[in-house]
Amino acid sequence: MKEELKEHISNLIKQEQWNEIRQQDWSDFLIPDVAALLNDLSKSERVMLFRLLPRPVAADIFSYLEKEDRNSLLKDLTNEETRYLLNNLRPDDRTALFEELPGQVTQRLLNLLDPEDLKEARLLLGYPRESVGRLMTPDYVAVRPHWRIQEAINHIRLKARNSETLHTIYVTDRSWKLLDSLELSHFVLANPDDTVETIMDYSFISLSAFDDREVAVKTMQKYDVFALPVLDSGGILLGLVTFDDVMDVAEEEATEDFHRTAAVTPLKTSYLESSVKELVSKRIGWLIALVFVSLLSSGVIAIYEQTLQTVIVLTVFIPLLLGSGGNAGAQASTLMVRAIATSDVNIKEWLKIFIKEIMVGLLLGICMGIISAVFGYVRGGVQIGLIVGLTMLAVILAANLIGVMLPFILTKLGIDPAVASNPLITSMTDVMGLIIYFAIATTILGGL
Amino acid sequence: MKEELKEHISNLIKQEQWNEIRQQDWSDFLIPDVAALLNDLSKSERVMLFRLLPRPVAADIFSYLEKEDRNSLLKDLTNEETRYLLNNLRPDDRTALFEELPGQVTQRLLNLLDPEDLKEARLLLGYPRESVGRLMTPDYVAVRPHWRIQEAINHIRLKARNSETLHTIYVTDRSWKLLDSLELSHFVLANPDDTVETIMDYSFISLSAFDDREVAVKTMQKYDVFALPVLDSGGILLGLVTFDDVMDVAEEEATEDFHRTAAVTPLKTSYLESSVKELVSKRIGWLIALVFVSLLSSGVIAIYEQTLQTVIVLTVFIPLLLGSGGNAGAQASTLMVRAIATSDVNIKEWLKIFIKEIMVGLLLGICMGIISAVFGYVRGGVQIGLIVGLTMLAVILAANLIGVMLPFILTKLGIDPAVASNPLITSMTDVMGLIIYFAIATTILGGL
Repeated sequence: MKEELKEHISNLIKQEQWNEIRQQDWSDFLIPDVAALLNDLSKSERVMLFRLLPRPVAADIFSYLEKEDRNSLLKDLTNEETRYLLNNLRPDDRTALFEELPGQVTQRLLNLLDPEDLKEARLLLGYPRESVGRLMTPDYVAVRPHWRIQEAINHIRLKARNSETLHTIYVTDRSWKLLDSLELSHFVLANPDDTVETIMDYSFISLSAFDDREVAVKTMQKYDVFALPVLDSGGILLGLVTFDDVMDVAEEEATEDFHRTAAVTPLKTSYLESSVKELVSKRIGWLIALVFVSLLSSGVIAIYEQTLQTVIVLTVFIPLLLGSGGNAGAQASTLMVRAIATSDVNIKEWLKIFIKEIMVGLLLGICMGIISAVFGYVRGGVQIGLIVGLTMLAVILAANLIGVMLPFILTKLGIDPAVASNPLITSMTDVMGLIIYFAIATTILGGL
Repeated sequence: MKEELKEHISNLIKQEQWNEIRQQDWSDFLIPDVAALLNDLSKSERVMLFRLLPRPVAADIFSYLEKEDRNSLLKDLTNEETRYLLNNLRPDDRTALFEELPGQVTQRLLNLLDPEDLKEARLLLGYPRESVGRLMTPDYVAVRPHWRIQEAINHIRLKARNSETLHTIYVTDRSWKLLDSLELSHFVLANPDDTVETIMDYSFISLSAFDDREVAVKTMQKYDVFALPVLDSGGILLGLVTFDDVMDVAEEEATEDFHRTAAVTPLKTSYLESSVKELVSKRIGWLIALVFVSLLSSGVIAIYEQTLQTVIVLTVFIPLLLGSGGNAGAQASTLMVRAIATSDVNIKEWLKIFIKEIMVGLLLGICMGIISAVFGYVRGGVQIGLIVGLTMLAVILAANLIGVMLPFILTKLGIDPAVASNPLITSMTDVMGLIIYFAIATTILGGL
């Protein structure tokens, strides 16, 4: 039966029937048999099978293997041909097929690698793009609760590879489950003869390897800690994330938000490293999408062509009215998008903010309305002054409310509020501004 | 003569002749005489005089005073009536009149105060708004080079007020001049019987209390350190700045840049804390300034009123052409402003970027030109299609270059490039877009 199994699994692997392997009921087989099967397979087949095993089976097999076999399996996991195999799966297939590797395997894997290989390994571990798993480093020192402080300090002295990550010492149990996170200073300040347990408070802040990296930024900002432990779904300590990486992430995230503000799909690399083709591709989509919003504006003008031809002076004020509306809308949406991003305002407070911004919009609108009414009067007399002034008031008020509310509506719909970019707001307020303008103009001029 | 001096100085103080006192030649007087004079004055007079003394004289006097007199002077420095006196000077007068307090005085002052008073004290010390001096905390532990490691650790145990700032230990000489910055882990890893000097490398990164707080962000990001010592102009250790404060600063600075992007003068408080009046005042200035740019657009239309009246269909495409130009300009300027803010691009590279962006602008322009030519053709025939398509190409190219170059020009002129806000770029590209549109239209339609 062992031969039969081997035959069957080998065939499935050769035919790249990943899904079949995934759905295999492994409870029929003994762990030693599966381990033996693994050892008989070729390098890349071994890795694929190991990655396709259910999490508990993989953990059992891993602890069953000899130390050397473990290490060779781990090395195979980062071997080039395996990498090729794994990378050639469609990303969604990869996520669907593979379970999270058992924490102990991940940990050993990270510790086994050269720092240069770390980046690629984190990718292979299957943590999503922009997740905490991609940021973490395995450079931590862990101690056990029953050790004496002096023993712990001696252990820290021995294990210290890198003093930068020595500031926080982790306390784990035998299976590497995190029990506490303590600062090095606690050890220095404690009585050397006490046990580690006496200084433990069993309270720590941690991240999951699957958390979005923005969670790391917010958590670090909230708790003012400069290193956060990263755990797998079973609470096993995988690594840590330090403030310097998190500061870089915060800057990158801010840059992405800036790009979104101007309707640019965030660049994957820095501006200087981005090719002309990449820059064009990140911008053209939004530019074309916004053409269709602008066409609505053109449509409104087309409807009122006759009015414009009769009272051509109305055309003169189009750039002033639309420009000002767009500016007020961009101001309001940027204030809101940033306030939401920094958790300064909460989506639940929309009504309060709505009322505040009606006041702001009215005051801005009155100021701007008076100024434009003067220009309108000088250029075209009382009626034109009245039309331009009233339109400006209404446009500023409406643009302000669109700018404030759109980010809230997007958040409510589960869309990143930064999509309410300045160009989108400007294009939307253009349409609305023209409708208001012609409505007011035809009313005052008596339905031309 | 001592009486005479006292009389003279007292009179100057009573008449608030601060400048006279400042210009006094103190070399004629003996330090003990000036110290005695200080002690004879009233509280607030004493403080004013002390703050007006030249830095070396103040330092001499301070070290001459008895411990109790020192402390009472320091307490007076933060006393309410003195605060009133100091605060009532015009800020520019304050900066012009007062020299930096001697480092040792500053240090003692910071250490003497309750944490709640610290914020105000940092203000009174005269460090400018948004300077590192306003951020620093005096919670550090310093050791001397000749101490043994074990002695140093014992000292750290005794002095530890706050474990968060214990990760970095500073080595100073007797006058508190900073000699080195060492991590606590270095002490833990060192041989307890060696001296501190054996683990020193005499290299450290530090900030000046007068540095802009953005310098703290950049320095911390560059060197990946989580605490930076703050020195006065003589190299005396005043305090330290930790990563958590710096992360908050980085977020605030990003928020300010976001606000500038949308032509909002950065708010001093969070959005929720800002009053309607404050929000209006931060927005109305730019809105009005931009009206005058928009009026140029209106002027261009006024010049070509006749053309528009004859070929009214040209009006229909104004929102499409100006909107798209504004969008492309906003994209380009935001990419540039952010790349400059994060030091991704250097102003010296402008030519390389200019050439790159001509390519980007051309490609975007060709895409957008073809799309708009189709709309133009459908709406108004071949000639209109040609006019709209060519205008779109030219407008996108020109807007892109304005958006890229304006931040560089502003930087060159010493102005924050973030002033090249989306609204400013949009308003500028409107004017340019209309000029291009009418130039192309009149040429193709044969000088209407």
